[in-house]
Amino acid sequence: MQITVTPLEEELHCKIDFKTKPPGSLGLLESIALQAGRIQNTLSPQITAPHILIFAADHGIAATGLVNPYPQSVTAQMVLNFISGGAAINVFCRQHKIDLTIIDSGVNHDFGNTHTFPQFIDAKISFGTQNYLYGNAMTEDEVMIAVAKGRDIVKRLAASGCNTVGFGEMGIGNTSSASLIMTSLLQIPVEDCTGRGTGTTDEQLQLKIETLKKTYQFHRLDLIDGNAILLLSKIGGLEIAMMTGAYLEAATQGMIIMVDGFISTAALLIAHNMNKNVLANCIFAHTSGEKGHKVMLNHLNAKPLLQLGLRLGEGTGAALAIPLVQSAVNFLNDMASFESAGVSNKEA
Amino acid sequence: MQITVTPLEEELHCKIDFKTKPPGSLGLLESIALQAGRIQNTLSPQITAPHILIFAADHGIAATGLVNPYPQSVTAQMVLNFISGGAAINVFCRQHKIDLTIIDSGVNHDFGNTHTFPQFIDAKISFGTQNYLYGNAMTEDEVMIAVAKGRDIVKRLAASGCNTVGFGEMGIGNTSSASLIMTSLLQIPVEDCTGRGTGTTDEQLQLKIETLKKTYQFHRLDLIDGNAILLLSKIGGLEIAMMTGAYLEAATQGMIIMVDGFISTAALLIAHNMNKNVLANCIFAHTSGEKGHKVMLNHLNAKPLLQLGLRLGEGTGAALAIPLVQSAVNFLNDMASFESAGVSNKEA
Repeated sequence: MQITVTPLEEELHCKIDFKTKPPGSLGLLESIALQAGRIQNTLSPQITAPHILIFAADHGIAATGLVNPYPQSVTAQMVLNFISGGAAINVFCRQHKIDLTIIDSGVNHDFGNTHTFPQFIDAKISFGTQNYLYGNAMTEDEVMIAVAKGRDIVKRLAASGCNTVGFGEMGIGNTSSASLIMTSLLQIPVEDCTGRGTGTTDEQLQLKIETLKKTYQFHRLDLIDGNAILLLSKIGGLEIAMMTGAYLEAATQGMIIMVDGFISTAALLIAHNMNKNVLANCIFAHTSGEKGHKVMLNHLNAKPLLQLGLRLGEGTGAALAIPLVQSAVNFLNDMASFESAGVSNKEA
Repeated sequence: MQITVTPLEEELHCKIDFKTKPPGSLGLLESIALQAGRIQNTLSPQITAPHILIFAADHGIAATGLVNPYPQSVTAQMVLNFISGGAAINVFCRQHKIDLTIIDSGVNHDFGNTHTFPQFIDAKISFGTQNYLYGNAMTEDEVMIAVAKGRDIVKRLAASGCNTVGFGEMGIGNTSSASLIMTSLLQIPVEDCTGRGTGTTDEQLQLKIETLKKTYQFHRLDLIDGNAILLLSKIGGLEIAMMTGAYLEAATQGMIIMVDGFISTAALLIAHNMNKNVLANCIFAHTSGEKGHKVMLNHLNAKPLLQLGLRLGEGTGAALAIPLVQSAVNFLNDMASFESAGVSNKEA
């Protein structure tokens, strides 16, 4: 493969190497600075109005208790927790002055007037997916509408002045959808794609793996052949489908995209499957503690910023990594050069 | 070994586990929250007036060009760069509102009136160490004075209200001192303790390793038997000796200590050698790209927060990691509990 270096990339490399530090000594931050410049097509990239979008939805499978220890109602309870500011993502967004919007993509709860809360978007497609153990999770039409709504939300976000966005999610049972997406698109055995999610015991994990293996066979996911819309309709989640549209639009808008954990990366696998260009805009926030995430990341040639063993979702990894992206941009814009500082960069 | 869990630790564990998240899902941040509570002996730790101290000094060996490609004069040039705010550490400290103080521990330059700059402390012991190829780097008296000055600086810092401090350093040639400290205290062969530092070529690295092997034999570092003051007088740096005192005092003062990269960790090896209690107060900021750092960290049972391939020094890793410590403290103090948020933490 031939690697083409554009004149802008060459100038970015020069700018980075003439900062008052040994070449390469800021490690991964140097790659991030380069990528930010490339995404924004400038030598002086900026992070403007960073934002986390949380897509929330329920999964029919969750009501069976076969793949998750927590009851389905926790999805709605956590949405209310986001709205009242008590969740981890609220804490981290407040710390770093990141805006946060909660999107009801399909939670099994009527939030009533809650959607007058300014940071809440009612984009509900249905009250959660069907149980995919015995049929499709949703129709292909529902998938397309979810993708379109995701695109629309990000389009409006970009128009409001935000150029950096991270995608989080909430949905009891959604690690199962993510595992099935991974197994189908990457052709890796179910057991290697399935982690504990929010469960803790070996028995819970075994039951989850058995259930997902049955689902894989029932839906003949071996024959899906990269048809992402069909795949989502069979075993997807509404939040994952909406996030897929959000990825596609964020790339179209030239935004910096912060990829969060296991479920966010599964949605990216779908978006990547639809449009390979999305990847150029993606900065990978962290390697999750959830089994399978590392394999997904390797598949995407990703070099994540953080390895903290997080496995919470909600966009928490993205929020914690945004300051590092800001640091990369800041050193590129604000550090002195050898010349301006009168520091020798010649060998003795 | 028996592990004793204090009542406070038990309460901290409970507080962490009743936050609205699956148990353990904030990964390393949960351990940091616990540690911060333990250091400050409270269920609600706080980060107050975080501060980076940069200790700068010159090394006689540097003038030979045998262990470093950059000329010795770069130490003073970089100190001036710190003072005028153009270095990476300045950028990161500004971003995160971390105070920064530069300490002349023994730079081979007369800064004249520069020390009227409010963030500059003149603690100069001498104009750099002697070349340890042919004799001791400094006297044992100089080591003791440097350690005492380091203690004094941190004592005053704590009295000013700072409870979280990171130690950075600047000194052309100081990775060599750090490698020799590591090889002597951990009894690991010189070649496994020696990385490129700011050098880039294989030839430079080979020359550095040969030079340090000769130094090891000349000073009979195999016979040092943990005598840290003697070791520092033979091959130490003034900034490393001062940092050793700073570590000891920060632990005495009950501060949270952010450990930076290869050289800062070498200074911690010395402090740890003098007083094992120091470690309880240390949070490890990052795994440096410099060879040998990982081995040091393993020896100290450290689980660093960041793996960004940084190898710049100056306290840059510490500055980038402080926001993560703040996040740990914030989730502990500000997240809702299952009870307060009305979220179910019972299995279905």
